[in-house]
Amino acid sequence: MQSLVKLYQIKANPPSLADNTGDLDRLKKSLAAVLESKTLVVPFSRIAPVAKAFRHSGFKGFAVVAHYPSGPQLIDFYAEAPEFLVGMALDLGTTHLEASLINLLNGKVLARAAEVNGQLEFGADILARIHFAQTKVGERVGLDLLHERVIESIHKLASELAGQIKLKTSEIVALSVSGNTTMVHFFLKQNPYHLCREPYIPVVNGPDPFLAFELGLGLHPGAIVWVMPSIGSYFGGDLISGILASELDQQDTTCMLIDVGTNAEVVVGNRDWLIACAGAAGPALEGGVARMGMRAGIGAIEHCSIDPESGKFSYQTIGEGPVKGICGSGVIDLVAGLYLARIIDIRGKFSPGQKQAKGRIIEQEDGLAYVVVPAAEAHGGKAVLLSQIDIDALMRSKAAMYSILTTITNQVGVAFKDLHHIYVAGAFGKHISPRQAIVLGMLPDLPLEIYKPLGNSSLAGAEMILNEASVRERCRMVVAKITYVELNVNQEFMIRFSGSRFIPHTDHALFPSVPFHDES
Amino acid sequence: MQSLVKLYQIKANPPSLADNTGDLDRLKKSLAAVLESKTLVVPFSRIAPVAKAFRHSGFKGFAVVAHYPSGPQLIDFYAEAPEFLVGMALDLGTTHLEASLINLLNGKVLARAAEVNGQLEFGADILARIHFAQTKVGERVGLDLLHERVIESIHKLASELAGQIKLKTSEIVALSVSGNTTMVHFFLKQNPYHLCREPYIPVVNGPDPFLAFELGLGLHPGAIVWVMPSIGSYFGGDLISGILASELDQQDTTCMLIDVGTNAEVVVGNRDWLIACAGAAGPALEGGVARMGMRAGIGAIEHCSIDPESGKFSYQTIGEGPVKGICGSGVIDLVAGLYLARIIDIRGKFSPGQKQAKGRIIEQEDGLAYVVVPAAEAHGGKAVLLSQIDIDALMRSKAAMYSILTTITNQVGVAFKDLHHIYVAGAFGKHISPRQAIVLGMLPDLPLEIYKPLGNSSLAGAEMILNEASVRERCRMVVAKITYVELNVNQEFMIRFSGSRFIPHTDHALFPSVPFHDES
Repeated sequence: MQSLVKLYQIKANPPSLADNTGDLDRLKKSLAAVLESKTLVVPFSRIAPVAKAFRHSGFKGFAVVAHYPSGPQLIDFYAEAPEFLVGMALDLGTTHLEASLINLLNGKVLARAAEVNGQLEFGADILARIHFAQTKVGERVGLDLLHERVIESIHKLASELAGQIKLKTSEIVALSVSGNTTMVHFFLKQNPYHLCREPYIPVVNGPDPFLAFELGLGLHPGAIVWVMPSIGSYFGGDLISGILASELDQQDTTCMLIDVGTNAEVVVGNRDWLIACAGAAGPALEGGVARMGMRAGIGAIEHCSIDPESGKFSYQTIGEGPVKGICGSGVIDLVAGLYLARIIDIRGKFSPGQKQAKGRIIEQEDGLAYVVVPAAEAHGGKAVLLSQIDIDALMRSKAAMYSILTTITNQVGVAFKDLHHIYVAGAFGKHISPRQAIVLGMLPDLPLEIYKPLGNSSLAGAEMILNEASVRERCRMVVAKITYVELNVNQEFMIRFSGSRFIPHTDHALFPSVPFHDES
Repeated sequence: MQSLVKLYQIKANPPSLADNTGDLDRLKKSLAAVLESKTLVVPFSRIAPVAKAFRHSGFKGFAVVAHYPSGPQLIDFYAEAPEFLVGMALDLGTTHLEASLINLLNGKVLARAAEVNGQLEFGADILARIHFAQTKVGERVGLDLLHERVIESIHKLASELAGQIKLKTSEIVALSVSGNTTMVHFFLKQNPYHLCREPYIPVVNGPDPFLAFELGLGLHPGAIVWVMPSIGSYFGGDLISGILASELDQQDTTCMLIDVGTNAEVVVGNRDWLIACAGAAGPALEGGVARMGMRAGIGAIEHCSIDPESGKFSYQTIGEGPVKGICGSGVIDLVAGLYLARIIDIRGKFSPGQKQAKGRIIEQEDGLAYVVVPAAEAHGGKAVLLSQIDIDALMRSKAAMYSILTTITNQVGVAFKDLHHIYVAGAFGKHISPRQAIVLGMLPDLPLEIYKPLGNSSLAGAEMILNEASVRERCRMVVAKITYVELNVNQEFMIRFSGSRFIPHTDHALFPSVPFHDES
């Protein structure tokens, strides 16, 4: 194990008239012998505190060294061996931040927590925030506020985590950050203007690691900040984390990685090659589609089913208590159930005459809607509905998803059946029933054991970076060898998209396991 | 020539949908091919400005790269080839700062200037300032003020220099600093407490280069600041500069380097070995001894002579106008002349009865004094005097000087006559008459052509660092191979000191060319 920050025990001869070497130089000399590195840098801001700590420790103790790609940097000195040497791994999400503290001495997780991204106030999604970043706010621009807000959120999260193990945030000596390209731009206070404008170019993909004090993070001022590199504006470090966590880059067999949020990002590859793309999947799959849609949380319908014969609806929610809404996985189950019960047709349109829909379809101002949970049973006496508009949005999302998957596999000449595993990242991967997604024609019709949920692989990748030099090296290799395909302007993608706007697909042969409701 | 900062011409393909590499990464990729370096770091604070400048330049132009010992760092990007790429070399003296601007494109000096060290207000000499550094001043400590004041002085000097060639200080992309260990501590805001306390240990000898913005220097914020390393508290980077400028470390024959200020620092060596020591020489040799003493400047008596027979006194001053005082070289000439004219004896005591002293010796409250320039001829109508007390101080200084030279040569078993050259640094070297110093027994009795004035070698070394990688490498080697002998506690030195408190010496055989006035 070669953690990002390590301790090195040092015992130097104390200064004397016969050896008048300066305090810091004395420490560096002792360290050089242990480190086997030609260059050991002490950042300017660390000279005074490190030299002072070394002297106060009686010229012996434990040097705290951060391993930068350019070489080791000395950031602190402890008189005694600490119980923990703490690094923070951060998944910098658009809506939520999730983080853990890792004991870098043994790689163990010490604490985990999540926090709302304080930037939400300035825009719910990425595009709204990019727009806000350019806006003048009094004397300042939005970017400044977005930056400050996310730094605040990170500090809040760090305080909570540190509190869990009775530590000060200033004792956190490393931070690894994994997030989408836009969030990372805000974190680094970089102009996001070109991220959402053709040809979609970031200011920076792979910033060199730097010292925490430069961002005022409130961690140890000499803490190393390691930001997971991005591949493009729509393919961020969170996906690189996913590759590292799934070990897609290490396998002999070809696998696929899918991460679904507002965008769907997909990687296909093996130890020899990696190809990636990203496409707008719409907010449907994040639970943002339905007006009753919500993130997977307490009170959300996570799974549901409709008896194809009787139309009887049953569901399960996350946690106890009345239903508040329906999350992405619930929507997929629901729409698949509506299709199998023939309540919607292959175009995803309500067939109100069907007996299975009895008493569940209502007319609203903007069209028909399916009553998922009646007002009487629902939280706040407000019925949970799924409207035709909601279904139309999901149809676009699922079509986009399947088109992305077919386009990218086609690019490299790999058939779906040749995929050894399909890793599904994030909350989507955790909650989704692959079977229902197959019914909808969103995911390829493959044996269910092919699909592997990854959990929060963005956070997992960030944790791995803290613990292992080999993973940091893999990260560098992944970035060097990955090929990125831009789908926003891809002709093939557009054609495939049209064919995918039916349940499960216009080409039914692609989905042999799904009943086909021929309407002709 | 491998200057500390260099330009590299770059022409990158502009971004496209087929190549969505981030702006900064695009620049780094293009540079990597030209630089032949595995690691190229962009400091965090430079990401935004460099990426922006690259884009605004149409992805082609000139990358500004600082060559750190740990590897190259990208600090700026210019659309057009600049006429100058400017580095500032600084001699950070206790009383004066002297600096030059160098065009790093060809190594030529563009401007030179000097400025009083603003710290003078807080203490005339090093010890006074070290004491002041610990003093509370309102809410702050003296160190903060000393640091701020020297930064101000440097900025003032930079402004003057930049003004000379119609540049902004923010266009200065490198700063090399050569100064004594205490001044460097103040510059870096490091605690000088242990510098003057046994065993005389600096906080840091060789700080790693860092970015100018960290000190608020008002230069280019990404300018590299390169500080000449010290060997000990009393052997600073200014002496390392002297070694580099004299090429003591490059020669087959053994030479000596002498730098005299309040302390006398001496190096003996050749390409194979270097030995150094420093000892308190007293302020006499800096012109601080006599109450009429002054630095070598306008109105100072630089040279003088006394006719040994008639006692007739003649002198020459620096510049036009009336005499203001007498500088170090003048004092040496004067005391040597007093001795040769028998106005003082071998102990340096006035013999007022001597005819050569006629009318020139007066009685003052604190003893006898020699009238150098009568009130009527002197600036402000104030006579320039040299008192017995002044001479006693000089006697101690010259004894210290000679003792240092004999002690260090004895340490390595080198006789004075084996020295190929003796380089004499600084104003002392520039103004002093080696012959008169020999008469006093301050310098060894060697042919005068052995003595070579070096000029401001502290500044010269700083200039060389800016221009040549080979000099930066030599600097590293010099520090690694130099042996430092602490004289403050050296028994041999103390014994030699006693023997040196006569003119020229108790052992007259050491000074065959000097008339010996036996008083027995």
